Parts: sequence; structure tokens; C-alpha cells
Amino acid sequence: MAAAEPKPPTGAAAARRLARSCWSAFWDYETPKVIVVKNRRLGIVYRAVQLLILLYFVWYVFIVQKSYQDSETGPESSVITKVKGITLSEHKVWDVEEYVKPPEGGSVFSIITRIEVTPFQTLGTCAESMRVSNATCDSDEDCVAGQLDMLGNGLRTGRCVPYYHGSSKTCEVSAWCPVEDGASVSQFLGTMAPNFTILIKNSIHYPKFQFSKGNIENRKGGYLKHCTFHEVSDLYCPIFKLGYIVEQAGENFTELAHTGGVIGVIINWDCDLDLSASECNPKYSFRRLDPKHIPASSGYNFRFAKYYKINGSITRTLIKAYGIRIDVIVHGQAGKFSLIPTIINLATALTSIGVGSFLCDWILLTFMNKNKVYSHKKFDKMVDAPERGAGPGLCASEPSQQDCVLTDARGLAQL
Amino acid sequence: MAAAEPKPPTGAAAARRLARSCWSAFWDYETPKVIVVKNRRLGIVYRAVQLLILLYFVWYVFIVQKSYQDSETGPESSVITKVKGITLSEHKVWDVEEYVKPPEGGSVFSIITRIEVTPFQTLGTCAESMRVSNATCDSDEDCVAGQLDMLGNGLRTGRCVPYYHGSSKTCEVSAWCPVEDGASVSQFLGTMAPNFTILIKNSIHYPKFQFSKGNIENRKGGYLKHCTFHEVSDLYCPIFKLGYIVEQAGENFTELAHTGGVIGVIINWDCDLDLSASECNPKYSFRRLDPKHIPASSGYNFRFAKYYKINGSITRTLIKAYGIRIDVIVHGQAGKFSLIPTIINLATALTSIGVGSFLCDWILLTFMNKNKVYSHKKFDKMVDAPERGAGPGLCASEPSQQDCVLTDARGLAQL
Amino acid sequence: MAAAEPKPPTGAAAARRLARSCWSAFWDYETPKVIVVKNRRLGIVYRAVQLLILLYFVWYVFIVQKSYQDSETGPESSVITKVKGITLSEHKVWDVEEYVKPPEGGSVFSIITRIEVTPFQTLGTCAESMRVSNATCDSDEDCVAGQLDMLGNGLRTGRCVPYYHGSSKTCEVSAWCPVEDGASVSQFLGTMAPNFTILIKNSIHYPKFQFSKGNIENRKGGYLKHCTFHEVSDLYCPIFKLGYIVEQAGENFTELAHTGGVIGVIINWDCDLDLSASECNPKYSFRRLDPKHIPASSGYNFRFAKYYKINGSITRTLIKAYGIRIDVIVHGQAGKFSLIPTIINLATALTSIGVGSFLCDWILLTFMNKNKVYSHKKFDKMVDAPERGAGPGLCASEPSQQDCVLTDARGLAQL
Repeated sequence: MAAAEPKPPTGAAAARRLARSCWSAFWDYETPKVIVVKNRRLGIVYRAVQLLILLYFVWYVFIVQKSYQDSETGPESSVITKVKGITLSEHKVWDVEEYVKPPEGGSVFSIITRIEVTPFQTLGTCAESMRVSNATCDSDEDCVAGQLDMLGNGLRTGRCVPYYHGSSKTCEVSAWCPVEDGASVSQFLGTMAPNFTILIKNSIHYPKFQFSKGNIENRKGGYLKHCTFHEVSDLYCPIFKLGYIVEQAGENFTELAHTGGVIGVIINWDCDLDLSASECNPKYSFRRLDPKHIPASSGYNFRFAKYYKINGSITRTLIKAYGIRIDVIVHGQAGKFSLIPTIINLATALTSIGVGSFLCDWILLTFMNKNKVYSHKKFDKMVDAPERGAGPGLCASEPSQQDCVLTDARGLAQL
Repeated sequence: MAAAEPKPPTGAAAARRLARSCWSAFWDYETPKVIVVKNRRLGIVYRAVQLLILLYFVWYVFIVQKSYQDSETGPESSVITKVKGITLSEHKVWDVEEYVKPPEGGSVFSIITRIEVTPFQTLGTCAESMRVSNATCDSDEDCVAGQLDMLGNGLRTGRCVPYYHGSSKTCEVSAWCPVEDGASVSQFLGTMAPNFTILIKNSIHYPKFQFSKGNIENRKGGYLKHCTFHEVSDLYCPIFKLGYIVEQAGENFTELAHTGGVIGVIINWDCDLDLSASECNPKYSFRRLDPKHIPASSGYNFRFAKYYKINGSITRTLIKAYGIRIDVIVHGQAGKFSLIPTIINLATALTSIGVGSFLCDWILLTFMNKNKVYSHKKFDKMVDAPERGAGPGLCASEPSQQDCVLTDARGLAQL
Repeated sequence: MAAAEPKPPTGAAAARRLARSCWSAFWDYETPKVIVVKNRRLGIVYRAVQLLILLYFVWYVFIVQKSYQDSETGPESSVITKVKGITLSEHKVWDVEEYVKPPEGGSVFSIITRIEVTPFQTLGTCAESMRVSNATCDSDEDCVAGQLDMLGNGLRTGRCVPYYHGSSKTCEVSAWCPVEDGASVSQFLGTMAPNFTILIKNSIHYPKFQFSKGNIENRKGGYLKHCTFHEVSDLYCPIFKLGYIVEQAGENFTELAHTGGVIGVIINWDCDLDLSASECNPKYSFRRLDPKHIPASSGYNFRFAKYYKINGSITRTLIKAYGIRIDVIVHGQAGKFSLIPTIINLATALTSIGVGSFLCDWILLTFMNKNKVYSHKKFDKMVDAPERGAGPGLCASEPSQQDCVLTDARGLAQL
């Protein structure tokens, strides 16, 4: 940035002059010289390409993709659930306390629809289940005392004993007796289950934008006591019938109630926070989450027990529960106008509009090269043309001195 | 990209010459011709605009927004909690095992503060709760046998029986008897609850940056046995009094203990990993998460039961528990220097600095067009000016030949 | 953008002419004039810099970092777990129902490996634990009736009573008696625990890309009944031995089984969705999550109880359970080709390639300034050179008129 001097005088004076010239040059304004090609066809191509790029950015990048927004995914979320309803098995009435596990009303809970009960289990010895590998036996020699099968029910005693029913025999085990496979009784609780109502309270918070919202809304007259969810008319009444959830997930209720299964209730909060808060609404979707196409691992069940002490000895009722597990999954993305992405995308747009001139330069080149069409006829008027003539000076032969200036400063050229 | 020849000789020679010329042209360096406008006012505008844009990028984009960093949100997180303390109701002492549900010490747990106990429930028949719609009756005709109200307690038997207290009658149901509304007794456990301590162990991991940290720190002398959390002095002692959490969330403890409610303990790990690990600290905030402004769905309660077997028949104690549910929510964003965002933002900055020349081109145009001020007076010196005169050649009339060269190459022009 | 007229005729005509000229100028194509520096060294520097920048973008930005992709982190995830196996303590067999808490098969569960049982607790009065501060006493005067120690077991009665064993005395409390520290018996369940199998079913969904996948695969012949996980050969058999998990996390099983601890099973779904779905595979990693280096808070345990009613009075068996808690944490990032990031990175690449010319301009400047080497010798041929002479017009002294045109339009210059 130092001015080069053609004939350097004495050192001090030269340095002073250099600094002054530098400083002066710093305040100069530079703009590239442009050449104006007065060819209508080329101009149309140029503007058309620019227009296409502009349209792409305005429409797709800014309007559709909202790239001027800063975004945040995964809001802080809290889910509170409450199931209501009663159902019947053959012998008894079941209330919420009995068929919802765990009872605390979190985001994941199971509604038991079928149970296999093994009552009166005590610690003792009894025949092993026939389903356990190598459990069947003919004599005591088939059973190794002290053997512990990881998928069995207990520690083998070494004896071969008659099975619970039928005439076969299995190895005796020291376990909770009788074993489940030998003595369990099935009960179906699912008859009324489609009518159970599930209240899902969800509140979210986008910390970056300090935005909070809930999925529940109060209206007059005990609205929340009587409403059920409807996507359009009752979006803010998050009370779902279990049958509705299962149906929306595309499953058959009776089948699901027998084998058990996991249904996801996905709440999506996609919010454009440039709009008013009332435009930010939850969207519910429902999907089966366990791999139902894989027989070996399809369905959902778990075991729990109730322990009793009778005459000092402990008895338990083991319950294998098949049920519909509901996983409430909350997702979302919020966007709000922000300077940085806007500027990055604007700069990209400006850079991309430059693609138009690459194309046109290439056309100019191709015209001249391939077709030898570079002429005054093809390019109606090329302002710099007099340069090519041996006129006395640039533009000297042009009638309007103005036109020449136009070739110099980029902005001026559009005059 | 092929050189056009004015008078093509024989084909082979022409092709050879073309290729050579192409190859040679490939190694040429091109730089745009610039025009230097030696106008101090315009230069000041130009540099001022550039300075503003530069400042914006340096200060806001790079320093405030740290756009040179790659970021990761939502760390892998694990939460282990442990509640300590004992409390009293009218008749008995309650320890952690009884008032914390579930007991496993996960990220979501409830501290029971009030219970409504319905002891000695057995399966049988009794009067339906008066709160159930259509449960009140005058005679058996008002009760339909076999009717099952989803919000009721059991299956109607068709009889109309006297209520538990008072002189009214309700339909008889086959259910767990007596029903809750008829026989429950309230007990308040919350008197000592504000003094319960909650230890929240949290460890996070940002997989992209391979960064792990925990919210607990050991100090000498059994520090963790005696400390309580303080934002400044004891940030790494995550032992909170329940009363402190409720107070920080802006709630009244007694009220909350009666109706129940959900409080979020939000741990935020916003980390600039370009700094040392000790600069990455958790930030705790507390917020009520259930919609307390909606009376119909405010509060938090759940039901669980204890089952006993007495003389072969099953009895249960049903407990409706109101409590303070604590949801520990872990959030965070980590940033670390990364090349790609840095380069994108630098490129954007460079592109944006170009905005200065758009502005100046526009000023040039406006000066010339509107005010006809394009003159040597307004623009002190315009290096290309001699071109406009009919001088014998470009710059020929200029005293210094150097100056003219400066108008050609962009960089040279600043000499 | 209005054409300036040198000698304005009547107003209307001028306006018409102005508009026409404007409209015409709009369709002009402008391209910057360039100067071609025919210097091989400079050209090599220029092209080398461009090549380096290009390589960086093609290789690092596009191939390594896949910046042409839109990405989504944190898929919707659902986890279903099932533990199988039986174990032995000194006296009895333990099955899944007894040692897995909670039983519902969610993403967080504990496998109990050691218990401290306090049987036959009833509400009454007994000696306080010696571990409680100020619990030891010599006479009743040391004990304040009505005092409630938050870390103790109950409400002090004011009496000083003999301890459960030894000759010391502690204050009497009204609590669940006997207190844990006085009467608990330890049992170790962990002998067979390394052989427990844990099935972890996980299904994920990337909502932005509508992509779902599970971590389980069916093969013929009851594959899932017999397989165990192997990173290479059995990636889609998510059945893990507990011992394998603990070993992979780098822990000693026996030690962990005694003190308890939390192990994270992290499932990572990093997916390039431009490839086929079969290229999107889960990656498992295992990590200890509780702060084992901090003695005061290391390990993992929780308390639960079983309640019994004997002769009308309630007894409970309090169990302090030490165990291995498994936290299944699902993470992931999916990427898919998307226009916007591609265009932003391409625009950045183009802008960055311009850095080459900044460098070359600076070299040109330095050559001229520092070394005074600006000459026809250093720069073999400078097409604009005749301008510097006082020739009759631009290029007039050049033999080929073509060459001059080349200096004008950017694209043309490469001819």
C-alpha cells in the first residue's frame, strides 16, 4: 500500500510523500471497469438466469425453507398422563390402579389388557416347565443336581417328577412353585379397554427463544370434563380414547390386546415463532413401535407379582401382563428470524446471481469462437468498439461523451 | 477456451497452435481493471460502510454468536436421584421408601405430600360414588343392571342402596368396596417435606466433541455429606432442599403440597469447548410444568394400592397420592472451533463487504444523473479522465506514467 | 437508472427517450474488463492457490464433512427391554420378577445384585441407628423428645435405650422398627448375574426424512432365540449378556455388583440416507455413568419394601437394593442431500477461490513496489501494455485486433 515513486528524492521527503500518498489512496474509491455488450439476446439470457436464481432464493430458500430463521430442535418437554376407565374380566372388575403400570402418570405407561396369573407360588420344589430345553426326563439320571438353566425356573434337584398335567415327566427344580407354565390361568381385561380415556398433558419450552406452550386449553363450562380429542375441533383437548389411538396407529385392537404392543403417541411442535403464539400448535401422530413383523420379538409383556404372607410363609401371585404400552414422544422445531442465517443466505443469493455472468461470458466466448459471429451485427453496439479502431483516443469518435463514462463505472453503465 | 486464429493456416498446424495457445492462456493471470475515483467524500462513505460491516461480523457474528464454532445440542445424559428425609402425619412416621415413587432414583419421581387412603377394600358390592353421573337414585328402577360407567367404580347390579353417609341413595355397583369417595381418609405428609434433600447426580457426554462432565465434585472432609446447593459457592454440590426447589419455581409450598404439581429442574450445560473444561458449568433453573392456570387439569396425583391377603381373601388399601413430581430435564449446547462454519462466515463477510461498492456505485450514479455534478470539481481527480478527452492515447497526457498503470490492476491501484 | 441526456430537448420527448434508453440499458449485458498478466510464475501461483482451495472443498467439506447434506439429530426413539435369567443367593432362587425393577421393560431399569433386608419392620419404638448424628446417649437427658432428624429414622421419644448389639445406647425413636442399620441382613444375588441376557429392542424414526429402522432382524430357524450380540457377525441380534456390558464399560463385575452402579448402553444411529437403508446401522457403546471416582456418591442403590398384614397389623420387609442400573441412551444424526446447504457451500467455495486473486494482486503489487521489477521482462507480455505507450489509440499498435478484444470481456480473455 505504499506509493512507488518514479524518481526518489531524498529519503525523508520520499517517506513523507509515500505516507501522504498512501493515506490519500486509502480514501480513493475503486470500482471495476465494465464493458457493456449491447446485445438484446445476451441481455435476455442474462436477466432470465438472474431471475430464475432470484426466484429460487425468494421462493424456495426464503419462503418454503424459511432459511432466514434460526432454529432450535428438541424442546424441553414434560408429560403428565392420566388414564380413566374400568373394565371387566370373567370374574371381576378392574380399575385404573390395577391395569395401569407404573401408576405415576409419566410419559411411558402400560395398560394391561391380558394377564396370565400363577397364584399361590411359594418357594419349594416342583416340576420344571416343559418349554425349558432338556427339562423332560424319563428317570432321575436325566437330571443333573445343581444345574441352573438361565432360561429355566430354578435349580435342578436331580430328581425326575411327573408334570402338572399329562403323563410326561420333567426334572424337579427348587424354585417358586408351581412354575408359571404349569399353573397359569389367562384372563382377558381388554373388552372395555378401547373406551379408556387417556389425558396427556404436555408442556414444552424452547429455551433459545424463551417460548413455552402447553397442549391443553381451558374453555367455559367444564369443557375438559366432557371433551375428546379431535384434530380440528378439539385440538386443545388432549383426551384420547385408547381405541382411537390404536386405530390411528393402524392396528387391530383385539389382536393387539392379546399379544401386547407398544404404540407411540408423537406430539410434534413445529413452530414459526415469527407468527403469533396461537399459530404454534401440536400435531399428534400415532405409530406402532415394536417390530410386529418379527414374530420372535413382537408384542409386549412383563411380569410382576404380589407378595402375601400367610401363616409366616411368603406366597406370591405372579402375573404375566400383556398390554398396550403408550410411549409419549415429544418432538419439535422452532424457528425465529435471525440475522446470521439471513445474511448467509443473502450473500449466497448474491454470489449465485453471479452465475448469470459466468454463463453469459461463456456464451460470448462461444459465439466468437465457434461461429465467428463477433460483429457489430450480432452485438448491436459494443461501447468499447472505438478502442478497436485506430481512433485518436478512447471514445473520441463517439458522439456522446456520456456513453463512454458508462463503460467505466459499473453502476454508471446502466444509464 | 480455444484460441481463435485470424487467418487459419493448415489444419494440423492450426490445431497445434490452438492447443499451445490454450495451455499458455491457462497460466495467465487475470485481474479486473478498476477505475479509481479520487473523491474523498465517496472514499469515506466507502470505507465507513466497509468498517460497519466488518464490525458487525467481528463483533456480533464472531464474538457474540460464536459462528466460528461447530455446535451440538442435546448431550447424552444420565440422571441419578436420591431423596433423604423423614416426615410425620398425624399418626405415624413416613420414610423415603413410603413417600417416594418410583423408588429407583431416576430422572422423574414423585414425593408424596398428601394421601387419601381407602383401607380395607375388597371385591364386593356397595354404593356407587355420588360424583359419578346418574349414580344417585330413588329406587331400583333408576339403576340399570349390567351398566358400566367408564368414569365410575364398577358394574351396576341394578339395586339402589343407601349411601355411606347422609340420607341419599346411589346405585349399587360390583367393585372394590367401599368406593374411594365414600370411605377415604386424608392424611397430610407435607409438614417436614420442605426439608427433604434431593441429590441429583447428572453426567453428560457430547459425543461429537468427546467431552464428558458431571455435576458433582468431591472436596475434602466429607464435603458432600454436609453441603447444600448454592449457585455461586456450592455449584458442584447438587443437593437441593425440596423447599428451595419449590421456592425457586415461584410456588407456594403448602398450596402445592395439597394439590400436587410438577416441578421441572432444568440443568443446562452450555459449553464453549474452546475454553478449558472448568468453564463448562451446569446452570440450574426451576419451573412449574403442569398447567396451574387451568383449574380442571391443575395439580398432580396418582393412585396405587397395597394388597393383603387375610383369611384367603384379598384386601387392598387404595391410596390416592398427591405429590410434587420432580422432572429433571437436561439440556445443553456445546460449541467448538470448526473450519467449515468459520469459512462460510468469512466468505459471507467478504461478500457482504462488497455491499459498500454497491452503495458507492449508486452514489456515483445519483451524483452524475440527478445533479449533473460529474465534474473535476466534485471528483477531485478521476484517473481515467484523459480517456474522455481526445488525447492521443490513454494516460498520454498524464505527467506520471505510473499513475495510469495503477488504474489497471486492482491491487496496483492503491499505490 | 435513467439515461442522462447531454442536451435535453422538450420535456415529453426527453422523458420518452429516457424511458426507452432505460429499458434498452436493462437488457444490456455487462462484464468487467480484465487485464491479462502473461506471467507464468504468477499464473502458477494463481492456479495452485485455486487448486488447493478446490481440493479443500471437494475433499474435506464435501466428502469428509458431507456438507451437501441436510441433517437431523435426535431421532424419535422407543426402547423395549427384557431381562432373562435366574440367580441364587445362599438360601433361595431369584427370578426376573424379583431382581428387575421396574418390571415394565423401559429404557432405564435396575438389576439387583445385592440386598440388605430388614424383615419384620413394624411401626413402633426402638433404638435409633448409631450412624445418625447425636444418636448415642448415656441417659434420657441426652435425648430430646419430639426431635426429628432429617437423616434419621424417626421421631425421638426422649428415652435412651440399649442398642441392638454391643453395649452402647442410643436414643429411642418412634419409627419402622427395628431400624435398618440395626437388623439388616445382606444377601448377594450377583453370582449368576453376568449370564443374564438383556434384549434391547430399539426402533428409531427421523421425522424430517421419514426414515424408520429397528435394531432387530429376523432370520430363519429361531435365530433370535439362540443368538447373542456380536459387533460384526450378529449386529442385529440385540441380546447382550450383562457380563459383556459390564466388561465393555471397563468395569469389574464383582465390585460393581457389590456397590451398584449405572452403566449406559449408548445406541448411535449415524446414517447417511443418500445410501441405502442397509448402510444405516446401530453402533453400540458402553460407559459407566455414575461418578465412580467420587467415593461419597459412587455406586447405586435404592430402597423398596413389601408390605404384609399379619393379624391386622402391618409389617414390612425393607430392602436396600444395590444393583446395576442400565440406561439405554439413543442418539443419532441422519444426513441427506439437500439443495440449500449444497448451494451455500458451493457459493462459499466460489467466493473462497477468489482468495487466489487477492494473493496474486498482492504479489503484483509487491513486485512492483519493493523490487521495482515491473517490466516487460518480468511480465512476459502485458496485453494492455500499448495503452501505456502514447500510441494513437488502444491496441492500435497491436498486430492482432483480436487480442485486444480478449482483454475486454472476462471470458474472452482466455482465448
